[in-house]
Amino acid sequence: MLTLAIDMDETMADTAREINLWYEREFGRALTEEELHAKEFKNAVPPDRTGAIKRYLNTPGFFRHLETYPDAVEVVRELNRHYRVFIVSAAMEFPNSLKDKTEWLDEYFPFLNWRQYCLCGDKSVVQTDLMIDDRSRNFTHLKGAKTYLYTAHHNVLETDYERVNNWHEVATKLL
Amino acid sequence: MLTLAIDMDETMADTAREINLWYEREFGRALTEEELHAKEFKNAVPPDRTGAIKRYLNTPGFFRHLETYPDAVEVVRELNRHYRVFIVSAAMEFPNSLKDKTEWLDEYFPFLNWRQYCLCGDKSVVQTDLMIDDRSRNFTHLKGAKTYLYTAHHNVLETDYERVNNWHEVATKLL
Repeated sequence: MLTLAIDMDETMADTAREINLWYEREFGRALTEEELHAKEFKNAVPPDRTGAIKRYLNTPGFFRHLETYPDAVEVVRELNRHYRVFIVSAAMEFPNSLKDKTEWLDEYFPFLNWRQYCLCGDKSVVQTDLMIDDRSRNFTHLKGAKTYLYTAHHNVLETDYERVNNWHEVATKLL
Repeated sequence: MLTLAIDMDETMADTAREINLWYEREFGRALTEEELHAKEFKNAVPPDRTGAIKRYLNTPGFFRHLETYPDAVEVVRELNRHYRVFIVSAAMEFPNSLKDKTEWLDEYFPFLNWRQYCLCGDKSVVQTDLMIDDRSRNFTHLKGAKTYLYTAHHNVLETDYERVNNWHEVATKLL
């Protein structure tokens, strides 16, 4: 059975939406699609607000109740029958996210189990046969793996990797 | 630079000692060397006490103040200059350990950084050139890696892997 690594933030979980909702509460208006186009969230805001974003991301609870992307639960459930699935998240920058992330997975993806979770700092220690991720930098070390770039506002201009725009497309390609 | 995965419990940290100290407080006496010989701690106690051990291991704080093995800090500091070191711990069974483990590393191994931490459920998702671990089951999936079995009471009868008995021996072999 092939091994498949699946990223969490902006692949399974709509982290970008939750940050923007907080940004609107904190600073009076949300960033627009145009402002976010081809940019990391932290690079789309005035520089004096990046510290506040980082602090918010490390607030206990932030990662606990993120929305899943449409069809993510159903497609991951099916993938879990056909691949050895690992959920691989570069979470270490935010140590308060670690327990939130395991509880989020336990709640929204109850057919997975803790043996399949991997929270790391740098994904270059991970090797699988396939990987789905919104950050292509997590693909570069993989040897002979099939990679799928999950579309996010920050990666829309990248052309070097096969792309999936939603979980329906993941199912079409992998199931 | 070669990648090197180093385990935490019973490789960097004297988890076994801390469990036995708790066991003595809880049940009146510590397990002896003879009782622990070639056994997992949980298999060396009466079966009706294994639940209490598992609960204790998931108590917030248990993994936060473990003693490091002699020379572990100094040798890991040197290894970190010669290898791409990752600290890889199968911690997911105990979600309350996750933050404790990152704080423990931050405190005792301040020359490492969070990019080098990897907390997982099953180490078969990890691939490095070398690995030091007290559990040989973590070696079996590695492709072409050099492995070092760190001696612990539960593995003393294993003969299939090159062994290191202490951090001085690690230094002799790897530095």
